[in-house]
Amino acid sequence: MGNVIAEISMSADGIVAGPDTSDEHRLGKDGDLLHHWMFEGTDADARVGARILEGIGAFVVGRTMFDAGVEPWGDDGTFKKPVFVVTSRPHDPVVKGPTTFTFVTDGPESALRQAKAAAGEADVMLMGGGTTLRQYLHAGLVDELRLHVVPLLFGAGVRLFDGAVGDHVRLERTAVTETPNATHLTFRVLN
Amino acid sequence: MGNVIAEISMSADGIVAGPDTSDEHRLGKDGDLLHHWMFEGTDADARVGARILEGIGAFVVGRTMFDAGVEPWGDDGTFKKPVFVVTSRPHDPVVKGPTTFTFVTDGPESALRQAKAAAGEADVMLMGGGTTLRQYLHAGLVDELRLHVVPLLFGAGVRLFDGAVGDHVRLERTAVTETPNATHLTFRVLN
Repeated sequence: MGNVIAEISMSADGIVAGPDTSDEHRLGKDGDLLHHWMFEGTDADARVGARILEGIGAFVVGRTMFDAGVEPWGDDGTFKKPVFVVTSRPHDPVVKGPTTFTFVTDGPESALRQAKAAAGEADVMLMGGGTTLRQYLHAGLVDELRLHVVPLLFGAGVRLFDGAVGDHVRLERTAVTETPNATHLTFRVLN
Repeated sequence: MGNVIAEISMSADGIVAGPDTSDEHRLGKDGDLLHHWMFEGTDADARVGARILEGIGAFVVGRTMFDAGVEPWGDDGTFKKPVFVVTSRPHDPVVKGPTTFTFVTDGPESALRQAKAAAGEADVMLMGGGTTLRQYLHAGLVDELRLHVVPLLFGAGVRLFDGAVGDHVRLERTAVTETPNATHLTFRVLN
């Protein structure tokens, strides 16, 4: 059985999307700066970005992330593995070359169950957004958290766990990788 | 002329004090867990804690932090250098052995000016709390930010820049130190 891994880029003050999010600007004002390290960083940054997808057998994303991502993910759907989209709106599967997006309407736990079944022995990656990660962390379903800390202070915006968990979650830092445009922290989730 | 350094401990989701802060519990629910690395960590953690005070010629703290800290700081006042307390309530200087706390009522910029004058060529440390750091960062008066990222997700609480700066502040990560109980990130503030 693989691990369930959550992965997200965050400013140094804990912001995962800029202020004033809207349908057109789902990452909010300047929110794209949080992902520059992956797409416009150095080779070292690109290697960390590539490693995100290694060993993953299936992905889970929220509907908002799917809507924002499906175009930039391109004709092959980027992931090349089964992707389960947590949503309240039913939708036929979307096939992009080797990537099939399946829409799950009976809750995040069902989406994770289906992703685990599809992944077999490989890991399942929870790609976000924040709302989706929060639900899984809150439910104690995440084994590993990977935070990409970007050298910016946003001051305002959506924070990783806005309005979430009452009690704190203990982590154990298992790895730190420094690249020029981010600090990549890996934590094991202890409870 | 020394640098102006801001220093604060933060959870992995950007929280600097737990929820439900009050006069009795100024760090909020479980907020003391954010500082365990410094007082109950390993030798490596203690060395990082000791380095916080190295090369510092004067300190600036907010009134809330003073009120919470003056007792635990003990009979020698811990800092052994001039400390300037930003407050709206005038108060006679408090002398604790080699440490003098001077209360500044004409604003944070005045407190920083006095601290710089007292520090001479040495650095000035802004010790917090969050509200005080926010004011200085917002005003572009901070040269270096040291974040001690603690392996906890708080979910709720006071975040580093609650209700602050509209535009983002760019940072450059200049050092990362890993100790068993925290990840210590040092950033140069670029704007």
